[in-house]
Amino acid sequence: MKDGYSRVPDPGDGLRLHLNENTGGCSPAALAALRALDEIDAAVYPDYTAVNTEVAAFFGVPADWLLLTNGLDEGLQLVAWAALGGRDRRDPAEAVIVEPAFDMYAACAGAAGGRVVAVGPRADFAFPIDAVLAAITPATRLVFLTSPNNPTGQIIPRAAIHQVAAAAPHTVVLVDEAYEEFAGDSLIEAGTVNAPASVIVGRTFAKAHGLAALRVGALVARPDTLEPVRRLALPYRLNVAAVAALRAALRDRAHVGRYVRETAESKRLLYAACERLGLEYWPSAANFVLVRVGPRLQDLVSGLSRRRIFIRDRSGEPGCAGCVRITTGLVEHTRACVSAMEEILCGER
Amino acid sequence: MKDGYSRVPDPGDGLRLHLNENTGGCSPAALAALRALDEIDAAVYPDYTAVNTEVAAFFGVPADWLLLTNGLDEGLQLVAWAALGGRDRRDPAEAVIVEPAFDMYAACAGAAGGRVVAVGPRADFAFPIDAVLAAITPATRLVFLTSPNNPTGQIIPRAAIHQVAAAAPHTVVLVDEAYEEFAGDSLIEAGTVNAPASVIVGRTFAKAHGLAALRVGALVARPDTLEPVRRLALPYRLNVAAVAALRAALRDRAHVGRYVRETAESKRLLYAACERLGLEYWPSAANFVLVRVGPRLQDLVSGLSRRRIFIRDRSGEPGCAGCVRITTGLVEHTRACVSAMEEILCGER
Repeated sequence: MKDGYSRVPDPGDGLRLHLNENTGGCSPAALAALRALDEIDAAVYPDYTAVNTEVAAFFGVPADWLLLTNGLDEGLQLVAWAALGGRDRRDPAEAVIVEPAFDMYAACAGAAGGRVVAVGPRADFAFPIDAVLAAITPATRLVFLTSPNNPTGQIIPRAAIHQVAAAAPHTVVLVDEAYEEFAGDSLIEAGTVNAPASVIVGRTFAKAHGLAALRVGALVARPDTLEPVRRLALPYRLNVAAVAALRAALRDRAHVGRYVRETAESKRLLYAACERLGLEYWPSAANFVLVRVGPRLQDLVSGLSRRRIFIRDRSGEPGCAGCVRITTGLVEHTRACVSAMEEILCGER
Repeated sequence: MKDGYSRVPDPGDGLRLHLNENTGGCSPAALAALRALDEIDAAVYPDYTAVNTEVAAFFGVPADWLLLTNGLDEGLQLVAWAALGGRDRRDPAEAVIVEPAFDMYAACAGAAGGRVVAVGPRADFAFPIDAVLAAITPATRLVFLTSPNNPTGQIIPRAAIHQVAAAAPHTVVLVDEAYEEFAGDSLIEAGTVNAPASVIVGRTFAKAHGLAALRVGALVARPDTLEPVRRLALPYRLNVAAVAALRAALRDRAHVGRYVRETAESKRLLYAACERLGLEYWPSAANFVLVRVGPRLQDLVSGLSRRRIFIRDRSGEPGCAGCVRITTGLVEHTRACVSAMEEILCGER
């Protein structure tokens, strides 16, 4: 994909703490539903009637407020095309991206012919509201916000989202809530999107629900706001395995609850380890933590990798010099990672 | 989606002869592979290394000649975006479509901001080469060809494809071979695409391989031709169930062979029935047959539907007045359909 986003190479067997996945796996009920599919289910075009109804009910919104997509990535792609496409490349529409950010935003904006206007981070990674407002111009057609942010784990204050949307009423504001289940702070509440009409909320079942491999994300917004996106969406975006597994996963809320509790405990373990090791970290509302390792970053990443524990070097991201991002999933995985970190970073003392 | 393409409503239980699906279902090996997935397989981002290699080997081309997509629909969408997007909507690029055609072409061209230039059919549905050549202008950026055609089942002569590509060397020519396995006449042969460099061949595993619900299609072309399309493609387009099932399906060539033989026998049965009933039909190279029922079309479609046999009314398509399209899959299904057709159309004599 344009601007360099591509699949992260598969590291092979080991502890995958590098992609913010659900390290415990999906609900057994979701797997059972997938395994109940037969030869004909695989061969005929999927029906989405029930899954659309059930996911809308899950979010508590009317069905026409929902667009299911082939992973949230496809949702981002479609929003970018709808907001930025159809313009002469010599006079592109602008997309504001607040860094550090998920690489997909710039990739999708660029692919749709948009110009990326990047807003750099504050040192403490608090949301840079003044800089975002200053970056909005008459050419802005799309603002990407992420709450909790990836890779920093920081929440955007509700008031700031309202301020951004108010400053650019004809601009789509995509609020990516991929990690919302870990934060419990969604704009989707009480049957509506609690934000100005131009806001589209992005959600995914890849993370807390553990369905990353089946590819299912969702956009939630007022029907008028969603309509230009819906017009670009292919009719058969979701595969039948995703449909079956998701319907079952939605009925197993306890599975998500347990995983969210594991991640909370994992974060506490990792924070404590960082304090023992003298490493700066940012308390996170998501299922990962950004940690500043500093000059020994490469030692840590490769030392862990030799032990088949994979974390993500984020030192190339704006504001993230010397930083890694570590997925905090099952407690036993976090314990293994913390123990290996201590070995590597203290072993030479 | 724009220009009216949308999912065909699910008719419920019955004999699905309306969407050119594999009415026998996918290979049992493909299903077993899908059922072997576990909770972690569902939760982690899929790896495509093996499937890319194996599908390229299946087509006999180098891996960089292949782009797997979320159904061939996504392939068509990406080709349309690459060829037609990024232009001012007041000066759109043109896409030539030879009618009757799969609705998705116009939908994708329109969604990408292109202007559709439609070439009407000849009475006998032979490829209208002169009219296609006349439709190509300096603004043409994309030509959609389908061989075998849907819904007519007609093959485009190899020489005509070369003529079209030669007439518009800077225009992408998408040759949709979704039904190729039934025709045995692919442009992909001897390790190459046997056509000018601007040709992209579209393939799918939805039809002969019976994986429509898992969503997996392919584009095959020279790497340079594919590159602008690849740049727009999301990194995680394919789901893990599609990857697992497809890899197994490719190893079960006998399953496809058996199904192709069933469809050949089914077509003979349907042709014979049409001759008994005095209905015009077009001998088809695909897994369906276009039949001109005439004024009793509605009686036939609704009479079959009451018997839970679903066929597709194509009478609204150019050149197809009074026509239905009937999927010819398993022989037992075709026998049931033919018998019901005879009851409905002869019952009142």
